[in-house]
Amino acid sequence: MKRKIRMGMVGGGQDAFIGAVHRMAAALDGEIELVCGAFSSSESKSKASGVALYLSPDRAYASFEDMIIKERALPENIRMDFVSIVTPNYLHAKPAMLALENGFHVLCEKPLAFSYSEALTLRDKVKQSGRSFGLMHNYTGYPMVKEAKAIVNSGKLGPIRKVIAEYVQGWLAARIEESGQKQADWRTDPDKAGVSCCVGDIGTHAENLAEYITGLKISELSADVSTFVKGRKLDDDASVLLRFDNGAKGVLFSSQIAIGEENELKIRIYGEKGSLEWLQSEPNSLLVKMSGEPVQIYRTGVDNGYLSKAALSGTRLPGGHPEGYIESLANIYKGFARTIQQDERRDEFDFPDIEDGVRGMRFIEAVIESGSKNAQWVKL
Amino acid sequence: MKRKIRMGMVGGGQDAFIGAVHRMAAALDGEIELVCGAFSSSESKSKASGVALYLSPDRAYASFEDMIIKERALPENIRMDFVSIVTPNYLHAKPAMLALENGFHVLCEKPLAFSYSEALTLRDKVKQSGRSFGLMHNYTGYPMVKEAKAIVNSGKLGPIRKVIAEYVQGWLAARIEESGQKQADWRTDPDKAGVSCCVGDIGTHAENLAEYITGLKISELSADVSTFVKGRKLDDDASVLLRFDNGAKGVLFSSQIAIGEENELKIRIYGEKGSLEWLQSEPNSLLVKMSGEPVQIYRTGVDNGYLSKAALSGTRLPGGHPEGYIESLANIYKGFARTIQQDERRDEFDFPDIEDGVRGMRFIEAVIESGSKNAQWVKL
Amino acid sequence: MKRKIRMGMVGGGQDAFIGAVHRMAAALDGEIELVCGAFSSSESKSKASGVALYLSPDRAYASFEDMIIKERALPENIRMDFVSIVTPNYLHAKPAMLALENGFHVLCEKPLAFSYSEALTLRDKVKQSGRSFGLMHNYTGYPMVKEAKAIVNSGKLGPIRKVIAEYVQGWLAARIEESGQKQADWRTDPDKAGVSCCVGDIGTHAENLAEYITGLKISELSADVSTFVKGRKLDDDASVLLRFDNGAKGVLFSSQIAIGEENELKIRIYGEKGSLEWLQSEPNSLLVKMSGEPVQIYRTGVDNGYLSKAALSGTRLPGGHPEGYIESLANIYKGFARTIQQDERRDEFDFPDIEDGVRGMRFIEAVIESGSKNAQWVKL
Amino acid sequence: MKRKIRMGMVGGGQDAFIGAVHRMAAALDGEIELVCGAFSSSESKSKASGVALYLSPDRAYASFEDMIIKERALPENIRMDFVSIVTPNYLHAKPAMLALENGFHVLCEKPLAFSYSEALTLRDKVKQSGRSFGLMHNYTGYPMVKEAKAIVNSGKLGPIRKVIAEYVQGWLAARIEESGQKQADWRTDPDKAGVSCCVGDIGTHAENLAEYITGLKISELSADVSTFVKGRKLDDDASVLLRFDNGAKGVLFSSQIAIGEENELKIRIYGEKGSLEWLQSEPNSLLVKMSGEPVQIYRTGVDNGYLSKAALSGTRLPGGHPEGYIESLANIYKGFARTIQQDERRDEFDFPDIEDGVRGMRFIEAVIESGSKNAQWVKL
Repeated sequence: MKRKIRMGMVGGGQDAFIGAVHRMAAALDGEIELVCGAFSSSESKSKASGVALYLSPDRAYASFEDMIIKERALPENIRMDFVSIVTPNYLHAKPAMLALENGFHVLCEKPLAFSYSEALTLRDKVKQSGRSFGLMHNYTGYPMVKEAKAIVNSGKLGPIRKVIAEYVQGWLAARIEESGQKQADWRTDPDKAGVSCCVGDIGTHAENLAEYITGLKISELSADVSTFVKGRKLDDDASVLLRFDNGAKGVLFSSQIAIGEENELKIRIYGEKGSLEWLQSEPNSLLVKMSGEPVQIYRTGVDNGYLSKAALSGTRLPGGHPEGYIESLANIYKGFARTIQQDERRDEFDFPDIEDGVRGMRFIEAVIESGSKNAQWVKL
Repeated sequence: MKRKIRMGMVGGGQDAFIGAVHRMAAALDGEIELVCGAFSSSESKSKASGVALYLSPDRAYASFEDMIIKERALPENIRMDFVSIVTPNYLHAKPAMLALENGFHVLCEKPLAFSYSEALTLRDKVKQSGRSFGLMHNYTGYPMVKEAKAIVNSGKLGPIRKVIAEYVQGWLAARIEESGQKQADWRTDPDKAGVSCCVGDIGTHAENLAEYITGLKISELSADVSTFVKGRKLDDDASVLLRFDNGAKGVLFSSQIAIGEENELKIRIYGEKGSLEWLQSEPNSLLVKMSGEPVQIYRTGVDNGYLSKAALSGTRLPGGHPEGYIESLANIYKGFARTIQQDERRDEFDFPDIEDGVRGMRFIEAVIESGSKNAQWVKL
Repeated sequence: MKRKIRMGMVGGGQDAFIGAVHRMAAALDGEIELVCGAFSSSESKSKASGVALYLSPDRAYASFEDMIIKERALPENIRMDFVSIVTPNYLHAKPAMLALENGFHVLCEKPLAFSYSEALTLRDKVKQSGRSFGLMHNYTGYPMVKEAKAIVNSGKLGPIRKVIAEYVQGWLAARIEESGQKQADWRTDPDKAGVSCCVGDIGTHAENLAEYITGLKISELSADVSTFVKGRKLDDDASVLLRFDNGAKGVLFSSQIAIGEENELKIRIYGEKGSLEWLQSEPNSLLVKMSGEPVQIYRTGVDNGYLSKAALSGTRLPGGHPEGYIESLANIYKGFARTIQQDERRDEFDFPDIEDGVRGMRFIEAVIESGSKNAQWVKL
Repeated sequence: MKRKIRMGMVGGGQDAFIGAVHRMAAALDGEIELVCGAFSSSESKSKASGVALYLSPDRAYASFEDMIIKERALPENIRMDFVSIVTPNYLHAKPAMLALENGFHVLCEKPLAFSYSEALTLRDKVKQSGRSFGLMHNYTGYPMVKEAKAIVNSGKLGPIRKVIAEYVQGWLAARIEESGQKQADWRTDPDKAGVSCCVGDIGTHAENLAEYITGLKISELSADVSTFVKGRKLDDDASVLLRFDNGAKGVLFSSQIAIGEENELKIRIYGEKGSLEWLQSEPNSLLVKMSGEPVQIYRTGVDNGYLSKAALSGTRLPGGHPEGYIESLANIYKGFARTIQQDERRDEFDFPDIEDGVRGMRFIEAVIESGSKNAQWVKL
């Protein structure tokens, strides 16, 4: 019998940002229930977070190890079904591995791991475990992104020639990691973020989006990687030339020093017969441009009969009722929950998986490698 | 001790639209728990809805009367705290009255009631009951609407001279109520909607928004009211001249036959020193226009330090992470829940109340009256 | 044999605004040559203007009477062909009458005259004279406006139900006429502008645009007319309910106290099957919205094969090369010049004429009359 | 004494595109008079063009040599002052050299020449001649581009870190040069266009714009250059990594196979304290983004008191009256004419010159060289 899926969270304590977003997204559709968490490496903080979230005090754990072991010991009709991992990069693989080993499904923040090699190890574990593994590349959860993928896949645009993917932000234009901004702190710390700040945090979203929509794979790249803010240890800007496996070319650039840009993820895809344009800050519109015709504005909306089944499956409201960022995560959660539920409609919902994660880690390391070699081409 | 607030729902069964939206909004922040419902006038449908929502079967009731009486009889630590009413207009006042009489708080969809006189009766009941009463004019829940109100209130724009409020949709351009479209069916039925379709459904949102942001009251109006679709019994379009209590003038128009318009609620407010513009379909931007200066784009975002406390209190994400329609409802729910919880921060969150509802009903009837008298002025 | 058309100008001296715009527009296509002018009521200013414009000194005249009489006396291959009148409203009819009487064609700024009765007299004169008469309602010169008219005329939208026409500006939000701003000075002076400032200056553009595109006629109207700036003698804001001869309804509002608005002329037209939206500040886009389909963005461009002949005839550049305000006037001049030239392609170019002018004057007076009677309906 | 400047044109016959645009731009302000031309290499076509342009038949010449020699022989008060060259690339340097040798000023279309070495030769000639030389990089003529330059120059943005310049079009997505499209024909022909189609035609505009606004120089670049359309001999797409002389980085991409893009030239400039964004298809807006503040929309308009003198000098109309592409060229012509006139206000008007042209040619060849070496870095 169908029931609510039970979620345990790793990370996401009271002063974190993304944990709260995950909880809202998971709660949105009423299919997932937060039942426990290891919200902080400080037991008292974890407990306090649990209380604030109205959890039973005994299910706010001191560590992810504690949570996984103790939940495992609970009766099946009580214990969590999956772990949601919302910690910094260096704390993705460990809890994921342990959860999988103990029979739990895992949904993990991106990038998948601390390094490519760690990602490969995790992939092996996922395969052995037989458990479901989801990766929170949330931007693929937007209905208009799904529509874009469906349009490309239909052949309407013809073979793809050119992709322009960009993700620009300005929040790291100054050295705010020095003044205790927690988000900036770990992202600019090589011990917590891995080899990259900007590419790992946002460039990889652009990469994932480009491959998701086009169905193509990046075969090689050449990157100019920069650290503009003095004293910063990792990159805060990267510009990348892309070549895809079908011969298409691309440009991908990501920046965290682009003052005035909030969170501008944009993708343009040009085929032989038509093209697409999507911008995350106006996520409910998709521009479709066919040769010789007026540009068309496709719009999110359950009442828009021209949309593909994939787009509609991720849509909750009629046109003109803006759906946003939280819904994009909620769609990943929804697909993930339906898979766990073995729901008959689970095929309507795709979500990024371990393979996307491995590719993302390879992408990050390839960009950084190319950057360190004065933009030599690096094959993926 | 703080705890989750327990919600019972009236209406919102499986084939309804707005009930599901309310549930998502109520769930978003993890402060409210759906515990019971009278989801349909058909007991079997209500039960089926309860099951689909993972409720305990005995708390999916056959009628709102049943729900209110039986919940009343449950222990205090189990029974619902408030009723959320998401039924058609003619079914607002009855469950609200009964809930209040039995000590429950009430959050109700707009417009408040079937008629102005019914609204007055309900107002009396609210006052007697001492319970909290919230009205779902959700558009006031948007952060940028709160920012607009804060800006007007600060005096930055000077005295307000002119207001242009519009709300245009196209979904009733054909007589879809004949083909069983449920949303259209009751809204165009005088027995269920009251004296108005278009003005009651959307014109009243524009009115509420104008009064909310400006703090002014409409003192009189002149309206040209139309039914463009043959055979339809209620209005599907209205254009209204407004006069406000401070001498400001206004134009308000609402239409449901404006093909191609999804849900375009827009407001422009002009003062002696500056002006504002906000459009619901791009809800995270607010244009602020001061005389002789470049237009400024205020943006939703927890990290936008220039925003007012009111705007920030309704914001969940950093700039560039689009917040949408569901969040606007969630903000009403959040404020309502905090009030019930007697939360210390409850004053940060306003929500529309019974007075807004009474004014809305007066507005609707005044527009229809003016329309029936060839646009004579009617005082409110 | 085809030759350049020779233009004489009345008004438009060195410190005027619109005269210079007319000269640029007339010069743009190389079909019209400025040969003389009575640029100012001051002979010395007129002469100085003539010199600055590289005219022969003897053809910068002291008055329009002087110009018309003396040009009449010149040989046919030298004298001007038409008079372009760019003076304030109270100086339209006199030079126009005299020019027509002396065999010259006339192109006149809008509104046509100082009053409706003066307009009727001028219409009689035009008819008697057999000369061409053009009126500078320049917004009908934009290609996308012509496209809009062609689309409505094709029946694609079905019968028109609703029109929303707006024209809002903020430049008269303060009493700048007191500080010598020349444009403001005469427009707010009843002796120079006539019965209206705002409606005469911009409201009439919105009216003309609505009738031009739809092919409908306003049959009656109800207006709330305001003067927000203390001490001002004429209106600076008007909101109007419209009824059209086919049963369509409309809203028209114009304002000059809308701070932050530059020159926002916008029109939306809703039919039974589809709708249109055009905004003057982004003049090269026309939104076409058909029921159940994505919105389409029609664009100005000689290479846009989907455009109508009417739109293309007013287009000079490929798509993406913005055409602007001056071109809109130039299209009126172009059509006018081709008519005078008896050019074989003259039918491709329409331009507003004396009938448009008479209707505009009737509209202005009807709005002011309704405003003075507390928004009673006035038939046109 | 000040007088109209007399222009002779090379190229721009009846079926050309850009020649007509130049004539409109030159005519706009009434400061320049077209007096002669060698409009075509066919004498009869040149004559026919002259007639259509109302020129004296004896001043429509059979060749540019003919024109230059014969005009030289005319009295000083009749002969042309400067030559405007609007021919394909391979026909820029020859007429320019001959004109300079004969004492005429020259205004030339971009790119400057057929090759970098030819450009260097022409530069020597310009220097020797002492004549004025203007290059039609028209996009620098837009008021908001001038404003952008003024803002950067003021230091308001701090040192520049990152530049993103893009110019995408779709008109060459198919092999239209095969079907006789004249514009496509010569641009894709190495004998007429030189080493590049896409980079020479549009990439160089983006390069010029980036250097113009920032005042920086590109020091090296790495380019991936593509020909997507089979059988085409020159590039139709290029993506370029840029490094500037102050350490700033950049991305520049240009494409002619980007279906659905009309003429999208866009530039974003990020400094340490703020940033700018300008898009040619909405040329009258400039986004200014200062850290921690709402984005501001600067607008073209003679009445916008916050604009720099440089921006205002290129502005003709009040805000909200769209100025477009033709005005951008007209501003180049205006500055050029004022220089020839030795006008006292000539310093208010800059225009691109021979040095810009030489840099542009170097840029083009560097991109093509890098492209041919698999995106190796090439120093400029």
